[in-house]
Amino acid sequence: MTGRRGGRRPGSPDTRGAVLASARTLFAERGFTGTSVRAVAEGAGVDAALVHHYFGTKRELFLAAVAIPLDPAVVLGALHSVPRAQLGETVVRAVIGFWDGDHREAGIALLRAQLTDPESTILRTFIGDIIAGALGANADLDPDTAATRTALVASQIGGILLLRYIVGLDPIASMSVDELAAHIGPTVQRYLTDPMP
Amino acid sequence: MTGRRGGRRPGSPDTRGAVLASARTLFAERGFTGTSVRAVAEGAGVDAALVHHYFGTKRELFLAAVAIPLDPAVVLGALHSVPRAQLGETVVRAVIGFWDGDHREAGIALLRAQLTDPESTILRTFIGDIIAGALGANADLDPDTAATRTALVASQIGGILLLRYIVGLDPIASMSVDELAAHIGPTVQRYLTDPMP
Repeated sequence: MTGRRGGRRPGSPDTRGAVLASARTLFAERGFTGTSVRAVAEGAGVDAALVHHYFGTKRELFLAAVAIPLDPAVVLGALHSVPRAQLGETVVRAVIGFWDGDHREAGIALLRAQLTDPESTILRTFIGDIIAGALGANADLDPDTAATRTALVASQIGGILLLRYIVGLDPIASMSVDELAAHIGPTVQRYLTDPMP
Repeated sequence: MTGRRGGRRPGSPDTRGAVLASARTLFAERGFTGTSVRAVAEGAGVDAALVHHYFGTKRELFLAAVAIPLDPAVVLGALHSVPRAQLGETVVRAVIGFWDGDHREAGIALLRAQLTDPESTILRTFIGDIIAGALGANADLDPDTAATRTALVASQIGGILLLRYIVGLDPIASMSVDELAAHIGPTVQRYLTDPMP
């Protein structure tokens, strides 16, 4: 429309779009750890330094690429400052509070899109690398059991997100955050801190 | 192809198909309790007695309409015969054993299809009426809290189905049924039998 066809300018909207498209493709194909910022940059035809300049770390690039509007490390950052016995309830309040807020529609769209695509590994990458990293760092999990603990927490929280926002099953859909924290918090606490069976 | 166009014969494949199509439409629009066998029959242009003859009860018709290959009342029937303290583990073993078996592909296809359709109420109906009925009858739940207990159980089991069969997140995806029962059984037990917070 404006005559700016052809050349791709660093930082212009089409450069950002090309980087994000390249990132989505590579993260889906190779997962989080198998994807380098350099490879994303090459896929977009730009320099890796430019990718870092515009999107920050690889984790921040991933979150931008899959349109997750807030970094789980920020959502779960409160875990540092609560007593260990309140970790479960704090996780539930942080996640449900986030989803109940402004990000609800984006979250539902992302979840639905990822669930419908049999080839996508985005959710696996998101839970297995991003959430696991945030939980492990903020909740001080035993490294030997951290992957299992994170997956169990994800199963309980994921099931709640599914029933509350996608299926719309009452009373899960209509419970307050306080009620959900009372019901689900002890489960998450057990998965995070109790001895493994 | 065979010249049998036009007239719909009782019990012929096109009659069965018409009944199932009418059932899917009405269950999705009106939910389980809001749909009568008579209305399904009217929608298909056949007699209600014929629907009962070919599909049995309304619950059996629902299961056939949404292509759920086995009745939850059968899967959960074992709950009658176990000590009350083993209800949680028994539920986990019954559901995961069922999904790990021959019905895995059909289950995944159904779950994916229902999650992608924002208008569908099939999963809500399935959990809220069919599963709730089977759990309530077989696990002898307190009627005042049965809906909440069932929804909480569904959130934990649903999250496991999601991570194990759709997302494919390890170690949930690769755990044995025994391991899953040890991890998740106590959660389901708590939701079924512990005092509500």
